[in-house]
Amino acid sequence: MEKLKKYVSVKDEDHFYHQGAVELLIFNFLLILTILTIWLFKNHRFRFLHETGGAMLYGLLMGLIIRYVTKSPDVESGTVYECEKLNSGPSTLLINITNQVYEYQYKREISHHNVNGHQGNAMLQKMTFDPSIFFNILLPPIIFHAGYSLKKRHFFRNLGSILTYAFLGTAISCIVIGLIMYGFVKAMVHIGQLKQWEFHFTDCLFFGSLMSATDPVTVLAIFHELNVDTDLYTLLFGESVLNDAVAIVLTHSISTYSPKENPNAFDAAAFFQSVGNFLGIFAGSFAMGSSYAVVTALISFTHLTKFTKLCEFPMLETGLFFLLSWSAFLSAEAAGLTGIVAVLFCGVTQAHYTYNNLSPDSKMRTKQLFEFMNFLAENVIFCYMGLALFTFQNHIFNLLFIFGALVAVFVARASNIYPLSFLLNLGRKQKIPRNFQHMMMFSGLRGAIAFALAIRDTDSQPKQMMFTTALLIVFFTVWVFGGGTTPMLTRLQIRLVLVGVDPDEDLKAKAASQSASNLDKNTTKAESAWLFRIWYGFDHKYLKPLLTHTGPPLTSTLPEWCNPVARLLTSPSAYGDQLKDGDTDYIINNDELTENYEPTACIPAPAQDSTGSIQATGKEDIQEGDLGLGGYKLQLQHTACQPQKNSLA
Amino acid sequence: MEKLKKYVSVKDEDHFYHQGAVELLIFNFLLILTILTIWLFKNHRFRFLHETGGAMLYGLLMGLIIRYVTKSPDVESGTVYECEKLNSGPSTLLINITNQVYEYQYKREISHHNVNGHQGNAMLQKMTFDPSIFFNILLPPIIFHAGYSLKKRHFFRNLGSILTYAFLGTAISCIVIGLIMYGFVKAMVHIGQLKQWEFHFTDCLFFGSLMSATDPVTVLAIFHELNVDTDLYTLLFGESVLNDAVAIVLTHSISTYSPKENPNAFDAAAFFQSVGNFLGIFAGSFAMGSSYAVVTALISFTHLTKFTKLCEFPMLETGLFFLLSWSAFLSAEAAGLTGIVAVLFCGVTQAHYTYNNLSPDSKMRTKQLFEFMNFLAENVIFCYMGLALFTFQNHIFNLLFIFGALVAVFVARASNIYPLSFLLNLGRKQKIPRNFQHMMMFSGLRGAIAFALAIRDTDSQPKQMMFTTALLIVFFTVWVFGGGTTPMLTRLQIRLVLVGVDPDEDLKAKAASQSASNLDKNTTKAESAWLFRIWYGFDHKYLKPLLTHTGPPLTSTLPEWCNPVARLLTSPSAYGDQLKDGDTDYIINNDELTENYEPTACIPAPAQDSTGSIQATGKEDIQEGDLGLGGYKLQLQHTACQPQKNSLA
Repeated sequence: MEKLKKYVSVKDEDHFYHQGAVELLIFNFLLILTILTIWLFKNHRFRFLHETGGAMLYGLLMGLIIRYVTKSPDVESGTVYECEKLNSGPSTLLINITNQVYEYQYKREISHHNVNGHQGNAMLQKMTFDPSIFFNILLPPIIFHAGYSLKKRHFFRNLGSILTYAFLGTAISCIVIGLIMYGFVKAMVHIGQLKQWEFHFTDCLFFGSLMSATDPVTVLAIFHELNVDTDLYTLLFGESVLNDAVAIVLTHSISTYSPKENPNAFDAAAFFQSVGNFLGIFAGSFAMGSSYAVVTALISFTHLTKFTKLCEFPMLETGLFFLLSWSAFLSAEAAGLTGIVAVLFCGVTQAHYTYNNLSPDSKMRTKQLFEFMNFLAENVIFCYMGLALFTFQNHIFNLLFIFGALVAVFVARASNIYPLSFLLNLGRKQKIPRNFQHMMMFSGLRGAIAFALAIRDTDSQPKQMMFTTALLIVFFTVWVFGGGTTPMLTRLQIRLVLVGVDPDEDLKAKAASQSASNLDKNTTKAESAWLFRIWYGFDHKYLKPLLTHTGPPLTSTLPEWCNPVARLLTSPSAYGDQLKDGDTDYIINNDELTENYEPTACIPAPAQDSTGSIQATGKEDIQEGDLGLGGYKLQLQHTACQPQKNSLA
Repeated sequence: MEKLKKYVSVKDEDHFYHQGAVELLIFNFLLILTILTIWLFKNHRFRFLHETGGAMLYGLLMGLIIRYVTKSPDVESGTVYECEKLNSGPSTLLINITNQVYEYQYKREISHHNVNGHQGNAMLQKMTFDPSIFFNILLPPIIFHAGYSLKKRHFFRNLGSILTYAFLGTAISCIVIGLIMYGFVKAMVHIGQLKQWEFHFTDCLFFGSLMSATDPVTVLAIFHELNVDTDLYTLLFGESVLNDAVAIVLTHSISTYSPKENPNAFDAAAFFQSVGNFLGIFAGSFAMGSSYAVVTALISFTHLTKFTKLCEFPMLETGLFFLLSWSAFLSAEAAGLTGIVAVLFCGVTQAHYTYNNLSPDSKMRTKQLFEFMNFLAENVIFCYMGLALFTFQNHIFNLLFIFGALVAVFVARASNIYPLSFLLNLGRKQKIPRNFQHMMMFSGLRGAIAFALAIRDTDSQPKQMMFTTALLIVFFTVWVFGGGTTPMLTRLQIRLVLVGVDPDEDLKAKAASQSASNLDKNTTKAESAWLFRIWYGFDHKYLKPLLTHTGPPLTSTLPEWCNPVARLLTSPSAYGDQLKDGDTDYIINNDELTENYEPTACIPAPAQDSTGSIQATGKEDIQEGDLGLGGYKLQLQHTACQPQKNSLA
């Protein structure tokens, strides 16, 4: 008898293991299907459904199948057991069931009204994975990759505008959505659709902040394919990357805003506490992220000294790079800051300093590794979003709320882009034209971040309604606006290049746009924003020489009395580069990083891109081995360490 | 009041998230430390402590700190709660604690005597992660990488010997260890050290099977650095890779061996059932793994037809490759087979067929990706092994058992290597010399697989004793034998090349060994084992033309009546290659894959390796772009698709 029982329990455990495999297998198949579809679409130059839209569609279908085809084997889980002996939920619970002790692990707190939802399908429950997986595993690579590809001359040139859109714009968007939703909620209570829940103004603001995170991944992918104007691309990319960070911290601050008395009344003390909270977390995360990157830069920098040649071991270098970047995320989380923000700025700083110190082999390795992780994570998230519509068990669909949210999202986007563009154009020499503004308005898709923020807390009914609504808005914007990008670009006459069937045509157009960009470059210095110029001066004179082996030696930039220290800190190779322009790593052909599962081979063109930057910036650009395809070719030719090394041997 | 409670619960959850971050951070720091140490060691050519040994040492120190420095904040978790309403443990448990419902997830079953162990440190508990993580996340990349790097001419030449050592040798080792341990257990019961537990002969055999998995990762790394004889390297590598698969399936079969009556008595029916079980699972996993690889080969193969050019999108190709290989693992697990075995043979088949179809860019990407994953997973496992000595809470140290296990492991290794080598030498033309046999005996380290198999089940006291013993044997063998490899090679006079300080000396020695190997190559065909020749013929005539674009066209190898089908299945480019030797992908310079965080740059030598293989095999070798450094260089020069493609455009 006992033997039999033991045997059964082993079988159970086996079943448990296999169950996990089945779920992962479902995701794998969805991803494989998505890849095959992307491939097919790319072959047919079919742009009305982007891969993210496709992934979502497959997820949706699979969710439908799981929901209505699989049966429910686990009915017992809906029962609630009483336990009066405890005061709070411990992290581990040992339970004696018919003389056998089982260990249970704390998962989450559940509101009473949700208990019934748990009586459902066990398969559905298993497909709904822990929200913390989004924040701790899937988002960091995406955000890091975004930061890592931000290393752009155009980004720094447009820094002021991007910061305005990202900070002020997101705040405006959050408040506008909050106000409109509050109106809709009041109306819903009035017509009796909504019982008197705890749906305060802060909840509306919370919804506003999470819906303010834009994710134009689809739009940017199409921009990249179509060779759209670089300034528009940079504005959109920069805005969306920084705006994610702002939205995440904003959501966190609002959820901790707790006025002492009536939650509807305005409490100045609590408000300023929230603002302080926002600033503190943002600054702290920024500092955490950049300091890890600086440490990485210093470690990889030391390969120039004779003793330590980390660049000889690209695997170790890549490993260190990966682990230190991940540590930035984890440290921020452990310190109570926002890991996502830390990893974003870590990525930006790594690209700006560490990247220049890496060996050519490591440059390629890190680039491909992060690209691949980004690709997988992105498609997993979009698949999961599709799945969630049917597998998530506590959806609350409210048509009025959804309609209100749609209206709010558009009004908020409009009151972000148009007024701010008007203000920015007062100060900008190169104005943001009207059609660019329309395109930016149109590109306000909602994606992974909005979803991740919404799924993080789905315990109360208002939060569930927000989650359902956020999910539907993501579907709507990704499919409709994502699909409409190409026609919209044509309509707004932004599309510079008509991609024909003949690759040669592409080339000519590319060369034309390149020469236009060359003309443009001569005026760069004069046009630079003052913010950029101040930053550039400081970076070029002090940070670059300290953290990389480019730029003028510190001995020439620091005051004379610092000379002993300066000599110690300057790389020997910096003296040779003294006369060169350190500006070269704000690379021109900057579009390559965003979508590298692009054709790299069959069109032998892209070398032209780098010719442009070589013309403009001189020889050093070659040594930098930048992120573009031109640099890629160069990396391939010398597998050795930095060429400067030879002078040391 | 309620507000306050809500606030507290949010804080708790936050604390819960951060805790996870802290644990991961600890692992990150251990890995960063390990990498920095490896780097230092490599710089000083210090070979007495390999990186795996270093990782284990750091893990050990960290475990010591966690155990004795951190305090125990979670005392409540030791209490066992009664629950009579249930019959078995459901996967999810909802528990009402002071009017708040919490969700708990099933973790595992616990024996009564272990309950006390849970009263300990919460930090320790959290550092001890789920054994299934080893099997489902950390081992697959290591095993796949091993399979993927098995693509070797020497491997197929020594196939018979490798299979003998792997299958027969592991079986011998398992039985010998089982018998010796049974003797020791009897003695322990006799002197009263051991109460009359359920320590049957099958338990001893179980221990024997898990201790039979050898893991000479340390030894092979040093072999590679020292340029040891390729045949010895191949024998050891091939044996250890296949032997892991055999040990895993053997352990599974033994744990399901359940004689009906007295478990000590021999039950023929149950025995043959176990043998059948073994064969079925092995064959099934083999089939599952290879069929996924064949599917991958067919998909990537289709890029030669005009319609589908997957090779233009290296990211998609890499993604598909990765996902299909992982699916092999997951499908096998879901089907109740052994995922590790499936993923091993998937790797072997991928390397043999799919690899040839990939674009040069994807070849490099997949290679670097799997290398990197292997590197990380390996170091995580070794760090974790170090940690486990102090953080695992149910260790049972029994000196006699440990001593017995040490003796048993050595006797078993000896009765595997020497008798089998003697038998094999009767049939081999090129004998396995005595010093090779001693080196193989010496290289029987125990590592990740033995540990993972032992940690999978630590519920009963015998299993805990086995786990503790296995862990200590891993420590002992990795540190003592790993550290002693270099002196041992010198002593046995196997060390071909003395690595001096001057890199030129290295080069000369390398060139010398290369020319020796060239001489050797001329006799290859004649010496090939019959097993190899049969397989080679079939593979060359039918499989290669079907799955890759090399080899003779199927129209010439299949009977005439198959012509229509054959024409359909043959790649157009195969006709051009008709006269070439398809043997070239059994590459010569085969050592590069195993340890690629080796210097690739500062010594401009390795092109010589490929010169050797080019001389021997003609032009096609270049197109194949093989795994060695020579091929690497070639891949870099043309970033385009396979050169054959041009003829199609």
